[in-house]
Formats: sequence, C-alpha cells, structure tokens
Amino acid sequence: MDQEARVHSEHPDELRLWLRMLTCTQLVEKDIRAGLREQWGSTLPRFDLMAQLERAPEGLRMNELSRRMMVTGGNVTGITDQLEGEGLVERVEVEGDRRAFRVRLTTQGRRQFKAMAAAHEGWIVEAFAGLNAGELHTLHQLLGKVKQHFLQEIA
Amino acid sequence: MDQEARVHSEHPDELRLWLRMLTCTQLVEKDIRAGLREQWGSTLPRFDLMAQLERAPEGLRMNELSRRMMVTGGNVTGITDQLEGEGLVERVEVEGDRRAFRVRLTTQGRRQFKAMAAAHEGWIVEAFAGLNAGELHTLHQLLGKVKQHFLQEIA
Repeated sequence: MDQEARVHSEHPDELRLWLRMLTCTQLVEKDIRAGLREQWGSTLPRFDLMAQLERAPEGLRMNELSRRMMVTGGNVTGITDQLEGEGLVERVEVEGDRRAFRVRLTTQGRRQFKAMAAAHEGWIVEAFAGLNAGELHTLHQLLGKVKQHFLQEIA
Repeated sequence: MDQEARVHSEHPDELRLWLRMLTCTQLVEKDIRAGLREQWGSTLPRFDLMAQLERAPEGLRMNELSRRMMVTGGNVTGITDQLEGEGLVERVEVEGDRRAFRVRLTTQGRRQFKAMAAAHEGWIVEAFAGLNAGELHTLHQLLGKVKQHFLQEIA
C-alpha cells in the first residue's frame, strides 16, 4: 500500500515530501536487499559490515566496527561470527593487548565484497535512471540543503 | 560518521546521491524517534501501528494491520499487546467469527495519536525548513520521477 495516497490535502507539503522520500528510500533498499539475498544469500547488515572492513585493511576492533555501521538493527557480534564461519572475515590479535582483537576481511571476503559492491553500484545507477544528469545534480543539491539545515539547526 | 565522505571520486554520481538520500532519511527518522521517545516514551513502530488504526475506525484484523505497517522490524502482536496494556488499543470480536478479532484505538488512544501526529507533522516541517516553496516543489517532483521509474521499470 502506498503511504502517500493516505495523506489528506490538509497536510503540509513537507509531509507529502517526507513520505515520498521515505517511499523512494524504501524502494531502493528493498531492491538492494533482494539482490544481495538472491545473488549471495546475504543481507544489508552483512554487506554494510564488510564495507566498513574493506575501508580498514588492518581491521577494526568490535566497538569501532559497531560505531561505523550505517545500517541499524544488525547484531555486529552475530554477523561477525557468521562471516567468520564462512571464511569471509577473520579475528586477529592486537599486538600488546592479549584480550583485544581486530576483525578484518580474508582474501575470499575481499573478493566477495568487491563483486557485491559492483552489483550494488549497478542497482543504484539503475534506481536513478529515470533522471537525466541535470536532474541528478539538482536532486543532489536540494538534498544537500536539507542535510545542511538539519545538521546546523536540528541535530 | 558521514557515509558520504567515504565515497571516492571514481564512484558514479548516483551512488553519492543515494548515500545523501539515505543520510537525509536517517536524520529525519532519528529526529522523529527521539521526539516520540522523549515526549511519549513511544517508538516509531508504535506510532505507525496507531496511524494505521486511526485510518480504520472499525478496527483492523491482525493480518491486515501487519500488511499495512510502513515501518519494518516491529512485532505487530507484541506492540498490540503493549498498547492494549496501556489502554490505547482494544481487541473487539468480529461478528459471525468467534475466533477472529479486530484491533482498534480506544478514545484515549485516539487522543494520544492525535497529539503525536501533530508533533510529527511539526518535526517534518522543521526538517525541510532549509528549502523554500519552489525548492520543496522541485524536490517533490524529482523524487516523483525516481519513484515512477522504479515502479515501472524495476519493482
């Protein structure tokens, strides 16, 4: 069901805009989730976790990894255990601290993430294929103003 | 940490746009969640469930209620039990079917939802206050094109 259809005319334009933005975000996310599931039997939190590790070749401690995760709702320890079981990540000791460890991608994990990231990029490009270059630019600028106002005035 | 900052220049504009859209959506949602929690000790799934019931004065069966929920991750039965315990919703028998029931808002639930919806609207208006009327309109139009392309070509 389409949430936009439920907004009555007495509601402000901003509410209609917000519901449309939420719809767009949910459509794209749903598409990404479906692709990860169908092509790799994977999930968005797993992809997100691997993306964070890909940017940290020496690996990350668990607390740092949790902090960087963009997708909420993922159980970082549980996902790490899963990925370790599949040989995609490994735990390595932190020098000088016997109780601490870092998590990093294995060679196999790095290879799988590279393929996933390329597919992910393709899905995103396709998601916005209804806009021409000028429209893409305008949308980027306007969302930039939303973000800037939010960070300066609200958050 | 800002996910946009992590996109390298070799990535397509669409990826930058997607991450910015995701950031905006997450900022607004985080603000709504904080407001619901601080002012009513409530959550987005609870608000969403009450919003569905507000649109169905005779109430909804559980399966219909689940289907209409916009926010994922909520356990509909668990939330309904909670809200019932607080006197905000009630279960009513379905005529002619002893095993079925509908859930509907109580008078108190309707009153609370009305106050929450007004606050929610205010937060959304404030979230987009960085845009003038013309920019709001353009953003709405461009997101409409994204949505339309998605529904016609992808979903």
